[in-house]
Amino acid sequence: MQQHPILVEATRGGVVESFHRGALAIAQADGALHTALGDIDRPVFPRSAVKVLQALPLVDSGAAEHFGLTDEELALACASHNGEPAHVRTAASMLAKAGLDPAALECGAHWPGHEGAARALAAAGQAPSALHNNCSGKHAGLVCLGCLMARQAGREPGGFVGGYLQPGHPVMREVTAALQAATGCDLSRAPMGTDGCSIPTYGIPLRQLARGFARVATGQGLSPGRAQAAARLRRAVAAAPFMVAGTGRFDTRVMERLGERVFCKVGAEGVFCAALPTLGLGVAIKMDDGNNARAAEVAMAAVIEALLPLDDAQASLLASLSRGVLRNWNGIEVGTLQATEGLRGAFGRR
Amino acid sequence: MQQHPILVEATRGGVVESFHRGALAIAQADGALHTALGDIDRPVFPRSAVKVLQALPLVDSGAAEHFGLTDEELALACASHNGEPAHVRTAASMLAKAGLDPAALECGAHWPGHEGAARALAAAGQAPSALHNNCSGKHAGLVCLGCLMARQAGREPGGFVGGYLQPGHPVMREVTAALQAATGCDLSRAPMGTDGCSIPTYGIPLRQLARGFARVATGQGLSPGRAQAAARLRRAVAAAPFMVAGTGRFDTRVMERLGERVFCKVGAEGVFCAALPTLGLGVAIKMDDGNNARAAEVAMAAVIEALLPLDDAQASLLASLSRGVLRNWNGIEVGTLQATEGLRGAFGRR
Repeated sequence: MQQHPILVEATRGGVVESFHRGALAIAQADGALHTALGDIDRPVFPRSAVKVLQALPLVDSGAAEHFGLTDEELALACASHNGEPAHVRTAASMLAKAGLDPAALECGAHWPGHEGAARALAAAGQAPSALHNNCSGKHAGLVCLGCLMARQAGREPGGFVGGYLQPGHPVMREVTAALQAATGCDLSRAPMGTDGCSIPTYGIPLRQLARGFARVATGQGLSPGRAQAAARLRRAVAAAPFMVAGTGRFDTRVMERLGERVFCKVGAEGVFCAALPTLGLGVAIKMDDGNNARAAEVAMAAVIEALLPLDDAQASLLASLSRGVLRNWNGIEVGTLQATEGLRGAFGRR
Repeated sequence: MQQHPILVEATRGGVVESFHRGALAIAQADGALHTALGDIDRPVFPRSAVKVLQALPLVDSGAAEHFGLTDEELALACASHNGEPAHVRTAASMLAKAGLDPAALECGAHWPGHEGAARALAAAGQAPSALHNNCSGKHAGLVCLGCLMARQAGREPGGFVGGYLQPGHPVMREVTAALQAATGCDLSRAPMGTDGCSIPTYGIPLRQLARGFARVATGQGLSPGRAQAAARLRRAVAAAPFMVAGTGRFDTRVMERLGERVFCKVGAEGVFCAALPTLGLGVAIKMDDGNNARAAEVAMAAVIEALLPLDDAQASLLASLSRGVLRNWNGIEVGTLQATEGLRGAFGRR
């Protein structure tokens, strides 16, 4: 395994306590590299970071228009959400528009990722359903796509949709085709794993993930339908950034502040991808340890800070994310979590 | 920063998804090294992994005997507990024996680390207190020590105990002296940070941490009083392993199964220490990324598996911890989390 550079450091008492190595690619839609750090050709499971690519068929097929999906609903289709009440209501609304109920979701149930939402649910004497799963919007989108495909095939929606998360199901084949077209990666030869929500996840090099997000940013290299779909999804998320994550979350906070200039999306195991439309660039990060999002978020904040012109409020937010302060249970400042000079000096290096 | 070996790998779909580098020292009480991997001379904040060393004065001073502390209470003094009801009751009992109440604790409050306990608290319409803080037992032990010291000085306990977490307070000076004596590290020259519960944490190389835990294992190199205190604390934890962590936690599960042959204790940021009394060895691990305990636990399981003779039930538990299966929200097996061959082949290498 190639040694990757240290991108993020946690300090305490003025010394480095922990450090995070990782790899990073920034590319144009034609594949030209803007920046590369570490091994960007090793296959990486992008996990939830590519939900926007997986949602392209929902729009491109006409299903989103057919069912009258709103910005909030389209943003939720691209989300790893907190399971807060608004997320749950929105996922239920998507299913209702397709004439189905939460039993159609095959993602499994888990307690809301937002601790306050989880405790509120417990305090109300309730247990979580599949609607609370952070992927429920993606799955509701897959179900909507399946319902339209069933209609076009003259089939009963319920019977057609069942098993939609299997690699060979017509719905998942559409999703995989969109992912392959956007990244240019031959997924039939890629490592395949099972994601947290049970759909397939494919090993794709950061180089190709970055190119895929540059295509989301620009539409270049996508079919006209998928290019329009990408633009529609970016607008939806910019209009409803709460839906893509939720209270206190990086993606929501950054997109609330920067609007359409950033589309960013976290994935499990330290993956983070972004589209930067004004620059025509895509970004893909994978932290080696992948234990949770803390280091990938800091690295992505440093990327955005370095590449985009920012007003004072935007700069202040990004600085707090790329050079964060760690506080303990008494609120005392005990350390920092910050991008390294090695990362900050890397942009434009390839 | 020296490149450390990969000790733990997470796989998905048959390929490595994430990997964790780290350093490891195993030593005897005289400092002789049994195993070394990576840079074992870089200062590491051991965080909660050294609570047993910080609890030595509680016993050595006579405070534990004076207040009639039970095995459960002494184990809690060494704990990073889940904040489950039994932990909370036990911390309150320690304070009551010293004639004080939870207001004496200066560790801050947080929701129980055990999700079920947190949701049960919320469902009961309650909020967490300092008793729920994972360090409340350590702090209750410090308060008991302070109360005895106040009595010996002819002072009012409450007035004397206040501010006990400051480095210069007589209570904390006792704790620091015990930590220094056990590890042989000059803490006046060590990096000092503030821990999650607001007491000082000192940067100590893994080499010395391992030696300190070998001294806990054997009593060798400790004063007679501290040697007896170490043995008393090990017995207490072996008798009440639930108290040192809680439901589902590594330390509790391993010590429930292996009894007095292992004293192991996790710390924040990927630190893990252990005393192996039958072998006269101490173990100290620090994972570079330190993001949470998953990799350090796997590495510690591999150490125990390699070094101790195990019966079938013990071997089965350790194998499940050093070669764990990852399941998703639907309970589907999606990957593994396991010690690398590099780690497994390292024992005895120095």
